[in-house]
Amino acid sequence: MDNQGSKVLKCDNYHWDSVKRHQYKSDGGGFSKIHRYALLDERFPELNFHTRYFEIEPGGYSSLEYHRHPHSVVVIRGKGSVIIGNDIHQLSLHDIVFISPETIHQFHADKDEYLGFLCMVDRYRDKPVIPDSETVEKKIRNENVRSMMKF
Amino acid sequence: MDNQGSKVLKCDNYHWDSVKRHQYKSDGGGFSKIHRYALLDERFPELNFHTRYFEIEPGGYSSLEYHRHPHSVVVIRGKGSVIIGNDIHQLSLHDIVFISPETIHQFHADKDEYLGFLCMVDRYRDKPVIPDSETVEKKIRNENVRSMMKF
Repeated sequence: MDNQGSKVLKCDNYHWDSVKRHQYKSDGGGFSKIHRYALLDERFPELNFHTRYFEIEPGGYSSLEYHRHPHSVVVIRGKGSVIIGNDIHQLSLHDIVFISPETIHQFHADKDEYLGFLCMVDRYRDKPVIPDSETVEKKIRNENVRSMMKF
Repeated sequence: MDNQGSKVLKCDNYHWDSVKRHQYKSDGGGFSKIHRYALLDERFPELNFHTRYFEIEPGGYSSLEYHRHPHSVVVIRGKGSVIIGNDIHQLSLHDIVFISPETIHQFHADKDEYLGFLCMVDRYRDKPVIPDSETVEKKIRNENVRSMMKF
C-alpha cells in the first residue's frame, strides 16, 4: 500500500516532465502540424487505458480515420473543430467529445489558433483505418463535411 | 459508420451541457466541499473507462482512500496538493497524476484556490476503502503526511 509506481508529471505550458513530443504517427500521411505526447501509457503497466495529449498548430489537422475503439476527448487548449460522421462541431476550452466506434472523424485547429486535447483510449485497440474515396462517397452525404475533409 | 452515439458536450466555465453536478459520494464522510461531474460514464456503453470531473472548493478535500484500480488524473483548474502514500505533491494546471493500485491518497484544494481535475477510471472497478487508524499507523511514516490527512 505504498506509493510504488505512483507518479506526478508536472506541467509547464503544455510540456510535461519526462514526456516526449512524438510524431503524430510513424507512417502514413493525411495529417498536418500535429504532435503526440504520451502522458500515461505503456510506462504504467497497471493501466487498461491510456491518456495522450495531441496538439495541432494553427491550420493543422489529424488524419481522417475510423476504428472500432471509441475516443474520449477533452479540449485543454485553443479552438478548432471536429468532423464526426456527417457533422461538424466547433470546439473550445474543456469541451468533451465522445467518438463512437466505426465513426469517421478528423480534428482541425482553427486557422489562427492551436487546438490541444487529451484523448483517452483502450490500451488494447484496433488500428485506425483511412477511409477510401468510395467509403467517403457512401457514408458522408453532407457537402460541408466533404469539402472540409483533408486527405 | 455513421455518427450514432457520438456526442460533443460543450463547456462553459466548468459546466457542461447535460452533465449534472453530483454529490461526491452517496455515503460515508471524510470529505469536504467536493463535487463530481460524470462527463463520459455509463451513458456511453461502448466505454471501458469513464471520465469524471471533480471540483474541490478552497479548503476542501476528497476522502482518504485506497483501492485496487489505478487513477489517471489531469488537473484543469486551480491549485492544490495530493497525498500519495508517504509523499505530498503540489498540484497546478495540467499536472498529471498516476495513482497506483492500493496506494492511500487524498486530494486537497489550497486554502484560497479551487482544485478541479479530470479523473479517469476503469468502468468495472473495486470500491474505495477508507483506511482505519491501524493501517495509517503502519503504512504512513511521514509525519507531514499524517498531519495533513483529513478523516
